Amino acid sequence: MARISPLQQARSAYQPKLPPALRNGAIVAVKEGAPTTAAGDVEAVKSLFPCTFGSPELTFEAGEKKAFPALNVGVILSGGQAPGGHNVIAGLFDGIKSLNKDSRLFGFLKGPDGLVKGEYMELTSDIIDAYRNTGGFDIIGSGRTKLETVEQFEKAKENCGKLGVTALVIIGGDDSNTNACVLAEYFKKTGAGILVAGCPKTIDGDLKNEYIEASFGFDTACRVYSELIGNLCRDANSAKKYWHFVKLMGRSASHIALECALQTQPNWCIISEEVAAKKMTLGEIVDGIAGAVVARAEKGCNFGIVLIPEGLIEFIPEIKVLIGELNELLAKYEGEVNSLDAAGKAAFAAGKLSASSAAVFNSLPEGIRKQLCNDRDPHGNVQVSLIETEKMLAEMVRAKLKDLKAQGKYAGKFGTQTHFFGYEGRCAAPSNFDADYCYSLGFNAAALLGAGRTGYMSSVRNTIESADKWIAGGIPITMMMNMERRHGADKPVIRKALVELDGAPFKYFASHRAEWAVETAYVYPGPIQYFGPSSVCDLTTMTLKLEKKGTL
Amino acid sequence: MARISPLQQARSAYQPKLPPALRNGAIVAVKEGAPTTAAGDVEAVKSLFPCTFGSPELTFEAGEKKAFPALNVGVILSGGQAPGGHNVIAGLFDGIKSLNKDSRLFGFLKGPDGLVKGEYMELTSDIIDAYRNTGGFDIIGSGRTKLETVEQFEKAKENCGKLGVTALVIIGGDDSNTNACVLAEYFKKTGAGILVAGCPKTIDGDLKNEYIEASFGFDTACRVYSELIGNLCRDANSAKKYWHFVKLMGRSASHIALECALQTQPNWCIISEEVAAKKMTLGEIVDGIAGAVVARAEKGCNFGIVLIPEGLIEFIPEIKVLIGELNELLAKYEGEVNSLDAAGKAAFAAGKLSASSAAVFNSLPEGIRKQLCNDRDPHGNVQVSLIETEKMLAEMVRAKLKDLKAQGKYAGKFGTQTHFFGYEGRCAAPSNFDADYCYSLGFNAAALLGAGRTGYMSSVRNTIESADKWIAGGIPITMMMNMERRHGADKPVIRKALVELDGAPFKYFASHRAEWAVETAYVYPGPIQYFGPSSVCDLTTMTLKLEKKGTL
Repeated sequence: MARISPLQQARSAYQPKLPPALRNGAIVAVKEGAPTTAAGDVEAVKSLFPCTFGSPELTFEAGEKKAFPALNVGVILSGGQAPGGHNVIAGLFDGIKSLNKDSRLFGFLKGPDGLVKGEYMELTSDIIDAYRNTGGFDIIGSGRTKLETVEQFEKAKENCGKLGVTALVIIGGDDSNTNACVLAEYFKKTGAGILVAGCPKTIDGDLKNEYIEASFGFDTACRVYSELIGNLCRDANSAKKYWHFVKLMGRSASHIALECALQTQPNWCIISEEVAAKKMTLGEIVDGIAGAVVARAEKGCNFGIVLIPEGLIEFIPEIKVLIGELNELLAKYEGEVNSLDAAGKAAFAAGKLSASSAAVFNSLPEGIRKQLCNDRDPHGNVQVSLIETEKMLAEMVRAKLKDLKAQGKYAGKFGTQTHFFGYEGRCAAPSNFDADYCYSLGFNAAALLGAGRTGYMSSVRNTIESADKWIAGGIPITMMMNMERRHGADKPVIRKALVELDGAPFKYFASHRAEWAVETAYVYPGPIQYFGPSSVCDLTTMTLKLEKKGTL
Repeated sequence: MARISPLQQARSAYQPKLPPALRNGAIVAVKEGAPTTAAGDVEAVKSLFPCTFGSPELTFEAGEKKAFPALNVGVILSGGQAPGGHNVIAGLFDGIKSLNKDSRLFGFLKGPDGLVKGEYMELTSDIIDAYRNTGGFDIIGSGRTKLETVEQFEKAKENCGKLGVTALVIIGGDDSNTNACVLAEYFKKTGAGILVAGCPKTIDGDLKNEYIEASFGFDTACRVYSELIGNLCRDANSAKKYWHFVKLMGRSASHIALECALQTQPNWCIISEEVAAKKMTLGEIVDGIAGAVVARAEKGCNFGIVLIPEGLIEFIPEIKVLIGELNELLAKYEGEVNSLDAAGKAAFAAGKLSASSAAVFNSLPEGIRKQLCNDRDPHGNVQVSLIETEKMLAEMVRAKLKDLKAQGKYAGKFGTQTHFFGYEGRCAAPSNFDADYCYSLGFNAAALLGAGRTGYMSSVRNTIESADKWIAGGIPITMMMNMERRHGADKPVIRKALVELDGAPFKYFASHRAEWAVETAYVYPGPIQYFGPSSVCDLTTMTLKLEKKGTL
């Protein structure tokens, strides 16, 4: 018998809260809105989704219990882990069981691959119960294969057929939900008789829009990182000798960095979207941090906290150009550079870059120059997540401070520690918010399927209020799409939500950051709590609060 | 008004539990044991501490309330942060107030320096209340200055005199408590009329013995690290593509790594003390990990978790020799190497090492060779905490696996992520255990001082039971001392507690690790809980449970 931690044991009994519409089960009264359109490029999207385009937005109200045929459903976890995935599955399980107790749930293993290869396990109540309110995607595993080709779709149809599966739920990010919609369209067009619903997942927080308030996992991941950042703030303020440079996961978007900044009030936080909008140079970014270090040193505070979004480096225009040139150079001269180590490649590249890129390249610390010349990903691109931006900035700020010291403009001490928080938060057990939200998304997906709808994303709204005010329903995925250029072709995609510089979360941050930079205004959120007063346990993100209410 | 997190707000109301002897206040009935001796080198210790040596062990029982003169007490935080320091101070404050409501508490700022320089702040109830149950040492700051010289002692006496302070509490690790005892001796010998008590602090867990069950902060820090390690375990088991190499703080001793291994059941955990005892080579350590990787790959599990104690590198005999040679070489040829960068120094050193050390040196990854040649600390020693052992081992295991693959003995995939957890845990808000234990230690220190005792360490025992069975008392610091060679001289020191290979915690680990290596037997402890059922909130470490009960 496997040992289970005391917390996991106690937490397994938690019954997640549902929106009122679902409290009577997954048979709901469906309220249809007007036909919908697309987020952009309407005609193009419409032509690609003739069968699913224009479906109405749906809102659910509690339905009457009635006889309903048993439903065999397949579920897939797609892409990176996010806290609460197991609860989506548990909610889906309970939802289809509420339709008919003989409904069955099949989990396709290791992501979309399992659907294509027909690798699955039946998820019975024993298994579901062991995973309720836990973190991770280990119940069935996840994977990054993209469902895009007709061949895959046909395999999927065949494998569903073998199991009598007539409905699929795909739990994933923007790309996976786009693909869920393409699959829904294909199944509808070909009369496969398989419904498809999507659930919005990603810790990065970049899958949200007017209709989808938040992607699940964002709340929990940000809380884990904020716990740690708060602890570092406390440490910095106690030891009074280090500047901590903290890189945070989140891919392109800076939602995680921004949310963590709102929660902890660090001395500095870089928002990639602002860097891009203002066309900031690396030098300007370094000068900004160095300015805060100098100002704090003058107050006797030789310590601080700097938050750095993972995707930063690609948002700095001059670095973007440099990376582009490097990608081309290393591909063009593959034969000559392949045998060289990173240092050799860096030296080779330095001689062939344009003058402006060479200047930028040579301004970077040696270690970073090498990292930029490291092995490419399968698409020939530099792997930006492997660039240690936090060390780069710490070194460059140190160099800047040395100059300032020589000019008599700085007299402090500058010690640094660097950190990267990412993997620590993706599989944390879900907060109450994510436990409730995920369970509701899954249960709600059962309602969507029960109502015979396809090509919808499960939607639970009004989530800054308590769950008894949450609104369940469905949003046509096509409604969120526009066309974007990807790998040289126009593709329908759900528009990625970046941090909006005129949105309330950024504006709140921007209006406080000058004070936070100089003062020691740290807030210490502490660890996620599951059992305490509601003021401590039933929180949602500050981002969402600011977006929906405009204030905290 | 500073913003305070909801958790900090809710948690400030927590009233820590006290041992029964202190529930009536800090006036206690003192039960004296027989006169004590020293842990070793009795005559030498005795001759150095003629006034405080041999004091009896003390046990407290609840006393009658009675009139007691007001007491002015000074308190110092010494050395690295540990969760619960603020509660020691809060307990001390409440303790001396229970003796007499006009008692006053002065906090000397930034560690022992504040005592020597006379920099202090009075800790009033407003201030104390704002810091109850919080992490960090920011209430008065800490510092690493050692109190060792007569000049410092005289300054301390003078500064205490100015404030009417007749008792000092020094909160620190083994060295700080040793120095507390030297100061107690000096004050007693010179008739200064100032009592001194110590409190056992360090997350490293290496200040413990027959009389002191645990140093405070160890429980909380290990819980924070175990939360994160558990999350990484879940992530590894979900993504199924990374081996995570996690370095853990803890200086020389491997208590933290061992406790985290007991809590999370990772695939591999290195215990430095075992490496030293078995005179293991770096190659053997690498082979061990690679063996687990191969065994798991054969089961289709290309992922895992490896824990590495911070101090490892100094425990590997051949590396210890190498570091010794490097220290000497870099000092001897200072003139020639000073202008070189780390790579230049490494190349220079490689040519001058003994044959065996050169072989070891050349077997190390390039980055590590450079780190070993980096700037020395003020004592001319390599700064081992800056060596990225986690990256070193990941790289060396990768090289080993490449060999095994070439020999047809391994066919898996090996992706890695590296982490260092340390600063994230030192200033976490204390767990219930540490909140209670620290508050009790502080309150109990007030009882020691109220009883007129000096040269004692505050002792709270029987802590694997609930607080109503805790035993309060005092242990003469001299009782824990022996003589050790430090910087070429014999000095009295409290013996550092390393992991005992015949102790129950290590034996439990050793009897399970073969299974944990190959199976996926992870346990997910989750975040520290403050409000839930007692089974979740009122825990203590597995180390302590195993030490005291022999089983979990």
